[in-house]
Parts: sequence; structure tokens; C-alpha cells
Amino acid sequence: MEHMRHRMSTAPWDFGIQKELMMVDERLHQLVQSQEHTLTEASLHVIDAGGKRLRPTVTILSYKSLGGSDTGTIVDIATGFELIHSATLIHDDINDGGVTRRGRETVFKKYGLHQAIVTGDFLFVKAFGIGGRYDRTVVETTADACASVAEGEMLQNRYRHRHDLTVDEYMKVIDRKTAQPIRAGAMVGAYLAGGEAEHIRALGGYGLNLGLAFQMVDDVLDFTGDPVRTGKPPGTDLKEGCLTLPTLIAMSGSDGVRERILKVIAMETPSAEAIRDCAKEVLATGAIDEAMRMARERGQEALRHLDDISDTVHSRSLRELVGRVLDRDS
Amino acid sequence: MEHMRHRMSTAPWDFGIQKELMMVDERLHQLVQSQEHTLTEASLHVIDAGGKRLRPTVTILSYKSLGGSDTGTIVDIATGFELIHSATLIHDDINDGGVTRRGRETVFKKYGLHQAIVTGDFLFVKAFGIGGRYDRTVVETTADACASVAEGEMLQNRYRHRHDLTVDEYMKVIDRKTAQPIRAGAMVGAYLAGGEAEHIRALGGYGLNLGLAFQMVDDVLDFTGDPVRTGKPPGTDLKEGCLTLPTLIAMSGSDGVRERILKVIAMETPSAEAIRDCAKEVLATGAIDEAMRMARERGQEALRHLDDISDTVHSRSLRELVGRVLDRDS
Repeated sequence: MEHMRHRMSTAPWDFGIQKELMMVDERLHQLVQSQEHTLTEASLHVIDAGGKRLRPTVTILSYKSLGGSDTGTIVDIATGFELIHSATLIHDDINDGGVTRRGRETVFKKYGLHQAIVTGDFLFVKAFGIGGRYDRTVVETTADACASVAEGEMLQNRYRHRHDLTVDEYMKVIDRKTAQPIRAGAMVGAYLAGGEAEHIRALGGYGLNLGLAFQMVDDVLDFTGDPVRTGKPPGTDLKEGCLTLPTLIAMSGSDGVRERILKVIAMETPSAEAIRDCAKEVLATGAIDEAMRMARERGQEALRHLDDISDTVHSRSLRELVGRVLDRDS
Repeated sequence: MEHMRHRMSTAPWDFGIQKELMMVDERLHQLVQSQEHTLTEASLHVIDAGGKRLRPTVTILSYKSLGGSDTGTIVDIATGFELIHSATLIHDDINDGGVTRRGRETVFKKYGLHQAIVTGDFLFVKAFGIGGRYDRTVVETTADACASVAEGEMLQNRYRHRHDLTVDEYMKVIDRKTAQPIRAGAMVGAYLAGGEAEHIRALGGYGLNLGLAFQMVDDVLDFTGDPVRTGKPPGTDLKEGCLTLPTLIAMSGSDGVRERILKVIAMETPSAEAIRDCAKEVLATGAIDEAMRMARERGQEALRHLDDISDTVHSRSLRELVGRVLDRDS
């Protein structure tokens, strides 16, 4: 029972697919078993950190909303998307030098550079072992999304410490890093359900916009979130020299704010106080309201893509998911 | 013509499959194209460094030796194996802190940690995009070999700086890191040619033993190789605290040698002089002859696995390849 409760607690959102999400967790646990215990441990360090399972949720609901009913298939592929996400998180935390994630030390911090790189590779490979068993459409949709993430990483790196970053450029990064894989999960789910081309496209559009909204809210929470809930200290993006949506909006409204933010961004290791003052300044401009307005716009766009999807308990869950993504506090 | 010559020069070994190897190079160049030029550049930095294309060579010859004749298919899958190898090299060089590889700076040294991680991921993803288009046997054989590489990396890391490493443990590391992927390439080639189960197994056994011999010779060349030919300074393994075959043999023969080597291995940053003296000491014990004897034994074992494969120009090339792997000076 303890075991069961633990598994269930990793998916805080319930959209009538708890059974499937529990099966995803079972599969994740099975797949990361290795003779090399550190690989298993480091993998579970991320997998059991209590992520939202947003990607499996979207993939499974997308499949079910088009009438898909083979639980084994969709659990399998949803597991693949969560593995890719976990691999990306581990490698991403190395790149960002991140020390906490979901309230825990990152794999990089806890296990070191070498193990973090290899564990990420291991999870990628396990995902490939799953995805590769499906047909060419599934493989190409997934591989393209993964390549997109790599490109988004590179783009973000190029943009880091750049002073004239635009909101459009920011959107391009989050499109590639966050939205494309969620779009791919939605499309693959719809495709495997045997959906018509227009419905697959529609669910892809849903996933893309949901993914954008999700990341925009994430970047807002970096300013407004309770560290106990979000699992990371506030102002992390500023500290890492990342100009995200609230900051970019704040900068666009006032040259004074702009200059003061750029000064902090330019520092190699800004003090906690400098970060706090900078965050306060961003909040004072009303940039958060504007950022949330933009995120809600993406949410609306996601909902519009569901217009032609039959009204079922599952498509209603997809709708409800948009609200949850926008209103979350962690 | 310059272009053509360049491509041909990347594969120094000719076994009647130059056309196919050139096509592999073409495919590699196509696949790494990205809007993010740094991804392409960093990928080509490794791909164009003049590797031996051992993995594609084994995969293609294995396919042809069982009568496979669809050039497109085998070039495709051989490209996948080379991509996996390139991705592994890039991530491996980060782990080892390596600064030169094949006479060039490593991607890690030239482009930095972030770009090296992402470029490796990008190449993995491109490989999956290829491999995933084939059936379950191909996918699982390849994914298992990749997981094996990750496990080998972890194992090597655990063994690093361990003073009581045995030759058996060394063999376990090179089995996973080097031999398993070459075995997988040989098996996948044989399988795609429509080979019978026993022939697929035989070619797998060939690939495994060839891979072991290859790595053993590589570790010998770290002591005896001309840096101009091998593209890296000698004694690199000792410097990185890695006990490889010649060192392990030297240590097993004399407690004095053992103590002096362990002293160097234990240093965080041994001097060039300490490395040179240590290497000389290993050479003086005759450990190189013994290591080469063991490598030749693996070569013989590889050849034995070809006993039941029909004698054709391609299976003769597989035989010849064993000699080349053993006799190479770079």
C-alpha cells in the first residue's frame, strides 16, 4: 500500500487517467533497472522527484480523446515521452549549473558531471528502445521534437547574456525546448488512436500552445512562486543570466528598469540581494499581469484547437488541463 | 574533386566498400544540418576528424557477407551506428576531460561543456531517427548496445583510481564500451541481410571479439603509438588515472612496478615526466608483447566465428579487417 500511495502521489493532477499514469510510473521504474546501480539511482532521483507528468498526461488524453483504447500501447509511448523529458532535464541542469530541481539537488549536483551525462544518455536510449518499436511516423515525429530541443538549447545559449533579446526570440526558445515535445506527444497519441489527419493536427496545435502557456507560467512562477511549492529558489533565471518573459516585458516598459536589469544579468555571480531587488523591480512594473495575459492567450489558442474534437470525458480533461496549467502555483 | 577526395580520405581502410562508406559520409553530412550552425559545426568537427569508420565497415561487410544487396538500407543503418559512436565520443571526452582526439581539440575543449552535451544528444537523436525506422529486432539490438555503453561508462568510473583492478574487470569495461556496439552493428547487418539465426550469432561473435581486440590494441597504442599517427599524446590513460591492459599486466608481474604505477595513478595531475617514466617502466616489463598476444587471441576468436560463413570477397574482407585492426599504428 505504501508503495501504491507513493506512485500515485507523483501525479498531482487527476484527469481520470490515474491508472494509466500509475502504469507509466511502473514502466519507468522497470526500464531504469541496471546492473549499474548508480544509473538506476540517478534515474530514479529525477523520475521520483514528483514531476507533474504533463507529457504523459497530454499524450494519454490525446489518444483517448480520439477513441484510442489500447492501454498498453499508450502507456508505453507516454513512458517514452517522460523518459525523454527526464533525460533533457538532467542534461539541461548541467548546462544551467542548476543545483536544485523540484526541491531536490539536481543529478548533476548530487552525482557529478560524469554520472549526470551518462544517466541522461541512458534515459534517452531507453526512450529510443520504446519509440523505435513504433512506425516511421511516430519515430520521425519524436526524433524531430528531440532535435528541436537540442536546437532550442543552442539558441538559448546564444541568447544568454544578450541585451537586446526580444519576446519573439524568447518564444522561439520555449517553442523548441518545451512546446515541441509536448506537441509531439499529443500528435503521436492522436495518431496511434487512428485519428484523422485534421484531428492529429488539431491536437498537435493544442499541445504546442499548452506547452507554450506552461513554460510562460513557469517563468512567471520563477518570480511569484513560493519556493516550498515550486521546489526552487525564486529569481533562478535572473541568476543564470536568462531573460525570460516577465523580465523582457519589464525591460520594454522602462529604460531605467532595463538598465538595472542588464547590470544584474551581466554579473557572473550576482548577489542574492541583487537578484531580490531585481525581481522586486520586475514585479513593480506589472510585467507579471502582462505575462499571464499572454499565457492565457496561448491557453485560449490551445482550447480553440479542440473545437472539432468530440466532447467526451477525455477531451473535457484536455480542456480542464489548460486551466490547471494556467492557475498552478507550482 | 577536392570534396570527393576529402570524403574518401576519412576512411583509410579499403575493403571494396568505398562507395558505401562515401555514402555513409554523405548521409552523415546531410543529417547534421541544422538551423543552429554550431550544432552542425560541432558535429562535423567529430565526423570529419578522419575516424576509421570501423563500425560502418563491420556493419556493411557483415550485411554483404550474407548476401545483402540493398545499398540504401545498409548505408542508412551503418550511418546510425557511426552517429551513435560520434555521440559517445563527444560525451566520453567530457567525462575524461580529454583535450585532443584524432589530432584535434575535442568538441568539449573547442566548444565548451554546454555545446558538447547538446551536440552529443543531437547526434544520438539523429541516430534514433534512423534506427527507429527498422523493426523491433534492430531497435532492441541497438538500444541494448547503447545501454551497455552507458553501463560501461559507469563501470569505468567506479573502477577509476581503484588499485586492485583485474584484467577481467578491464575486459568487462571494454566489452560494454567498445565491443557491444560493434557486435550490434555486425548482428544488425547480418539480420537485415536476411541471415539465418546461427549466422547472425556468428557475426555477432565476430564483432564482439574484433571490438575487444580493437580496444586492446588502442590501449597498447597509448604506450607505443606515434602521437602524429594516433592524434593524441602518449600515456593519456595513465594521466587520466585509467588502468588499461598493458599497465595491469605490468603491475601483475612486479610489486615494485605496481607501487610506482599506483603512485602516479593516485595523483590528481601527474607531471609529464612522471607519466613518461611510468610509461617507460610499463614498456620495460614486456607487458606490451603480452597485451598484443591477448589481442591476437581475440582476433583468432573473431576469425573462428567466420568459419561457417561462405567464402566471398566480403567475408574475406571481414577476415582481412582483423589483421588490420591488430597491425595498425594509429
